Amino acid sequence: MAETLTFPPEEASKLSPYLPPQHNTSVSSSTAPTKPWVTLTYAVSLDSSLSLAPGVQTVLSGPQSKAMTHYLRSKHDAILVGVGTAVADDPGLNCRIAGAEDSQPRPTVLDPKARWEVREESKVIRLAREGKGKGPWVLVRKGAEVDEGRRRVLESVGGGYLVCGNGAEKGFGWEAVLEVLGTRGMRSVMVEGGGKVINSLLGRDKIGLVNSVIVTIAPTWLGKGGVVVSPDREEGKEQSAVGRLRDVKWCPLGDDVVLCGFPKTS
Amino acid sequence: MAETLTFPPEEASKLSPYLPPQHNTSVSSSTAPTKPWVTLTYAVSLDSSLSLAPGVQTVLSGPQSKAMTHYLRSKHDAILVGVGTAVADDPGLNCRIAGAEDSQPRPTVLDPKARWEVREESKVIRLAREGKGKGPWVLVRKGAEVDEGRRRVLESVGGGYLVCGNGAEKGFGWEAVLEVLGTRGMRSVMVEGGGKVINSLLGRDKIGLVNSVIVTIAPTWLGKGGVVVSPDREEGKEQSAVGRLRDVKWCPLGDDVVLCGFPKTS
Ligand SMILES: NC(=O)c1ccc[n+]([C@@H]2O[C@H](COP(=O)([O-])OP(=O)(O)OC[C@H]3O[C@@H](n4cnc5c(N)ncnc54)[C@H](OP(=O)(O)O)[C@@H]3O)[C@@H](O)[C@H]2O)c1
Ligand SMILES: NC(=O)c1ccc[n+]([C@@H]2O[C@H](COP(=O)([O-])OP(=O)(O)OC[C@H]3O[C@@H](n4cnc5c(N)ncnc54)[C@H](OP(=O)(O)O)[C@@H]3O)[C@@H](O)[C@H]2O)c1
Repeated sequence: MAETLTFPPEEASKLSPYLPPQHNTSVSSSTAPTKPWVTLTYAVSLDSSLSLAPGVQTVLSGPQSKAMTHYLRSKHDAILVGVGTAVADDPGLNCRIAGAEDSQPRPTVLDPKARWEVREESKVIRLAREGKGKGPWVLVRKGAEVDEGRRRVLESVGGGYLVCGNGAEKGFGWEAVLEVLGTRGMRSVMVEGGGKVINSLLGRDKIGLVNSVIVTIAPTWLGKGGVVVSPDREEGKEQSAVGRLRDVKWCPLGDDVVLCGFPKTS
Repeated sequence: MAETLTFPPEEASKLSPYLPPQHNTSVSSSTAPTKPWVTLTYAVSLDSSLSLAPGVQTVLSGPQSKAMTHYLRSKHDAILVGVGTAVADDPGLNCRIAGAEDSQPRPTVLDPKARWEVREESKVIRLAREGKGKGPWVLVRKGAEVDEGRRRVLESVGGGYLVCGNGAEKGFGWEAVLEVLGTRGMRSVMVEGGGKVINSLLGRDKIGLVNSVIVTIAPTWLGKGGVVVSPDREEGKEQSAVGRLRDVKWCPLGDDVVLCGFPKTS
């Protein structure tokens, strides 16, 4: 049995300026949907790797960082990963922070081509069935061929496929993703990975959609060949940094450090 | 005129456990040379880049980090860079910390093929001539063809070419480098870069030579294509991290963080 986790209030208070505003009332249905608050968060090695290779379980950060991740999840309406992570890791995507078991975030998977073979045994489905998490939303591209068996699995736990975008793009744009989530009442989303998803959101043309960034760095080098976080440079702008954070705070946490900041949009 | 720098004592005291032992007496000539203490230090972006590209001036860390680098230099007998850095950056490699102007470290350049076109106008030579730094030692491979004009330039400021290793290796081994420095009375060396030099020293078979590591991380992403710090993985060991630090300390410094630690040798 996976245990519940606790994150000390003195640590939590350091993070609060970087968390979405907390709402006490539910959104009234007459309110026009607004773009959800986006927190981008990930854990990396000193050489900016998320894992040794896709699907290779990689112990990076310590137990306190894990508790922090679950604490952060409790502060968001939705948590989001790319299909690469769903396929490689079979992640649970629920919140195990003590006292927050009843405010589970909505697991959201970006899967334009509907290639995630979600089934009864998938961890996220099992957790939802046991009442320990919500059923996942799988965002697919307009026109994607969706397997009916998988749809039944998702819907049996209150999740489902959501069509995103107009089918014109190969993947889908972040604007479309956030619109789908906003329309469904999500006021905040925590983007957790993996490499492709993070790199795309860190791009100069997308970072404006991100409200805050929380990065955990572990004092280890995974070495060349891992799943690396490093955004692409824009053509013609190879001579300057892609992005920077402002109002930065570095919080040591066990052997790791947690960096919080807001993207500097120029 | 480049100004002198100050590094606050309260910051300096945090670093002291990670600095070489300080000697009050000069080494007696009868003492057998011992391996110098090696401090590996560098400044990187969040995506582990030292610079946008070789030779592209890249502002990474803030003014406090620069003062720290010069403070660290004042605590070492030698500072070392690879020829890639010497060629790309024309670095000064002296110490500008207030009060330490008289204890200049020895600039050392690893240049197996003697390809660094050092001349009167090179910054390190100019500084040595003005009494603001020592003449550089350029370590070359046995049998390397050395230009006599360059030799005169080096020797005119008290530097010179030093032959390193037995010529059997393509570059030269770190053991040979440290032996040359130890024989010349260097009790400590600060390795500053660049990418190839750092990555080679971070390798699993070399990290045992490093006594401490001090890394500055700036809250910026340089993006793909930079000069990256990430060691090679050993064949057959792709499934585990290349290295890790122990007794770690994270010290926020301006917008940056300074990570100190000792390599974990397993
Ligand atoms: N350390 C951490 O914090 C952490 C957290 C999460 C994951 N991870 C690791 O990350 C690895 C997986 O990363 P990954 O890069 O392979 O996969 P990923 O980023 O999880 O998923 C990428 C896929 O998502 C789809 N996608 C949809 N919209 C996208 C968009 N706007 N931008 C980018 N992708 C979009 C694409 O699917 P199609 O190709 O089908 O179009 C794309 O190939 C695993 O090893 C996992 O362990 C680490
Ligand atoms: N941010 C920072 O802290 C920092 C500090 C210093 C440098 N830098 C940046 O680093 C970049 C230069 O890095 P680089 O990777 O091109 O060059 P580098 O590491 O400075 O020099 C590499 C060269 O050193 C020689 N060498 C001798 N022994 C070696 C060994 N054991 N291992 C590796 N190399 C050895 C080789 O010369 P041969 O090829 O002739 O054999 C090799 O090509 C520049 O852009 C500079 O600005 C940044």
